[in-house]
Amino acid sequence: MKGVVKHIVLAKFKEGVTKAEIEKLIKDYADLRNHIKQVKSFEWGTDVSIENLNQGFTHIFETTFATLEDRSAYVAHPDHVKFGTQLFPTLEKVIGIDFVPSPEP
Amino acid sequence: MKGVVKHIVLAKFKEGVTKAEIEKLIKDYADLRNHIKQVKSFEWGTDVSIENLNQGFTHIFETTFATLEDRSAYVAHPDHVKFGTQLFPTLEKVIGIDFVPSPEP
Repeated sequence: MKGVVKHIVLAKFKEGVTKAEIEKLIKDYADLRNHIKQVKSFEWGTDVSIENLNQGFTHIFETTFATLEDRSAYVAHPDHVKFGTQLFPTLEKVIGIDFVPSPEP
Repeated sequence: MKGVVKHIVLAKFKEGVTKAEIEKLIKDYADLRNHIKQVKSFEWGTDVSIENLNQGFTHIFETTFATLEDRSAYVAHPDHVKFGTQLFPTLEKVIGIDFVPSPEP
């Protein structure tokens, strides 16, 4: 079963942040699933869009949770908070948005 | 199997666009899967985030495809292009971004 809450983060790194630094951050981001039991799944990728609507964002991260309560526990978890203090200074811009996906209009 | 290409659209509607207009647009968006065979799945939802990072975006749409070629066929499909001409004038801002999700850093 897929997660019923999706947590999407779009990121654009600051100029000067190195490829190695970005790779380390992605590794640490993925590693949160090993420390925060509420994480159902974690996926990420770089932009491959062709519509010129990415607004400069280059990285996409999608974490899923079973419930909104699990999402909230993740947000408040010390390891997530600590990771945020590592990630945020490297970002030129960021969007974080959550939704409960429905196939029905 | 989940789609191997995810196409995410974040939207913020202009002030003055009515709830009924938004509902019709979401219905038409979802209906694309019935006209464009490359669509594997379509899901949407409204923002329920708690981190104050949504940058004003309120609606999330996620369409999946089996391949990048299927994604490109969708983008170019006349029904998608036509829907875009309906949707875009109603938006204050929009992001469209695609990625090939990987669980590994």
